[in-house]
Amino acid sequence: MKKMIIASTSTIYGSKYLEYLLPTLATFFKDVKTLLFIPYARPGGISYDAYTAIAQKAFKKININVKGIHEFENANETILHAEGVFTGGGNTFELVNQIYKNDILNSLKQIVNNGIPYLGTSAGSNICGVTMMNTNDMPIVYPPSFKTLGCINFNINAHYLDPIEGATHMGETRETRIKEFHVFNETPVLGLREGSWLSVENETITLEGKYTARLFTPNKKPVELESGVAVVV
Amino acid sequence: MKKMIIASTSTIYGSKYLEYLLPTLATFFKDVKTLLFIPYARPGGISYDAYTAIAQKAFKKININVKGIHEFENANETILHAEGVFTGGGNTFELVNQIYKNDILNSLKQIVNNGIPYLGTSAGSNICGVTMMNTNDMPIVYPPSFKTLGCINFNINAHYLDPIEGATHMGETRETRIKEFHVFNETPVLGLREGSWLSVENETITLEGKYTARLFTPNKKPVELESGVAVVV
Repeated sequence: MKKMIIASTSTIYGSKYLEYLLPTLATFFKDVKTLLFIPYARPGGISYDAYTAIAQKAFKKININVKGIHEFENANETILHAEGVFTGGGNTFELVNQIYKNDILNSLKQIVNNGIPYLGTSAGSNICGVTMMNTNDMPIVYPPSFKTLGCINFNINAHYLDPIEGATHMGETRETRIKEFHVFNETPVLGLREGSWLSVENETITLEGKYTARLFTPNKKPVELESGVAVVV
Repeated sequence: MKKMIIASTSTIYGSKYLEYLLPTLATFFKDVKTLLFIPYARPGGISYDAYTAIAQKAFKKININVKGIHEFENANETILHAEGVFTGGGNTFELVNQIYKNDILNSLKQIVNNGIPYLGTSAGSNICGVTMMNTNDMPIVYPPSFKTLGCINFNINAHYLDPIEGATHMGETRETRIKEFHVFNETPVLGLREGSWLSVENETITLEGKYTARLFTPNKKPVELESGVAVVV
C-alpha cells in the first residue's frame, strides 16, 4: 500500500511555488488536515522556519495546514503519527544528513509503505529511490550514507536536462553522468524533467505531466517513457 | 616548497586533450622524464589503461613518458618515488574513493609539499583543496571522507559557469550552490573558468589564462580576481 507523488521540481518556470501541482495535491491530500513538512534540505540555506512558511503559504490555498518537523521534540514519533508528509527540495546531501541525524529513515519508510500519502519534490524525490547517487547537488556536507528510502526500485534524477546542442562548456552532460553511474552501480535511473511527476498507487507507478521521462538501465540504450503510462523498471 | 598547476579543465572547446596547456607543461615538467599518472577518476567510466593512453599521447608531444599508477604493485611507494605527478579529471567521488582505498592521500600530500611538480585537471584539481565539497560531479560512489589534500587553503570549483541569462531551468546556479556551501562551511571557494589555471610556486599562487576567476568567501560579496595576479585568500 503506497500513495506517493514524486515530482521533479516544486516550481516550474514562470509559476509560483507548487502552483502547477496544487490541483493534483488537493485530491491527493483530500483526507489530510495537517501535513507534516520536512524542511531539512534548506534550499539556499534558508532556515527551517522560513522554508516551512513557504510550504504553508502554498498549502493554505487548498485548505491544508502545514507543520514543520522541527517544531516537534521527537522527529521519529512525529513521523509515525503523521497524516501526510511532504519533503521539500534543496540540497540532497544535507537532507540525507539530517534524515540520518534525526534517525527517521526507517519510520519514514514504514509510514510510506503503510499508505500515508507522501509528496516529494526535487531532493524530497531523490530520497524515494534506492540511493541519492543521482542527485545534481553539490556535496556541501558529508552524510553518513547515500542509502535512501528505496520506496521505488530505481533512482531519480530530478530536474533532468537534455544535452544542450552547440554547447561549448566541457562539463559532462546529465546523460554522461548517469552512464558513468552505471559503470559502478546496477540501479536503474529515471530522468524526470521539470514539470513531470510520478504518481505511485500501491505498486503502480505512473508518469504524469506533459513530458516524457528518460529511463537509464545498465547496458541498455536509454528509453523515453510516455506520460500517462505505467512505469515498469 | 610547492610546484603545482591546478587547471579547471584538461580540454578547452575546439582543442585537443591538454593542448592549450602543453607549452606551459613543457617548462613546468622540464626535469621530468617519466610522469606518474593517476587515472582513478575514470571519465565516462573508461579503464585505467585507456585513460593512461590518452595522457601518454598528449605528453609524447613534449617528450615526457607517462606511467599509470595502476601499473605498479604498491601505489604508496610509487607516489613517494615519483618525479612528477598528474591527476586527471573525471568523477571526483570515485577519484577520492580510490585515493582512500589505495591509501595515498598522505604520500601525495607529502611529495607535493616537498616540491615534486604536480598537475591536476578538473577532479585532479578539486583534490588540491581542503575538501572535495565543491565538485560538480554526481555522487556515483560513496568515498570514506570528503577531505582532500589541502595543498592550498581554499577549495576549487572547476569548470566554473556564470549564471545563464534568461535560463528557464529551475536547477540552482553554480553561485547559489557555492553560497549554500558557505551556510555550512568556512572554507573559501575559487570558481575557475575553463581555460584558467593556478600556478603554485612555493606559497605564491598566481591565476593564469585569459579569464578572471570568482572568489567566494563566507559573508562577503564574491570578487573577480584578475589573471596574472597573485591569489590571496
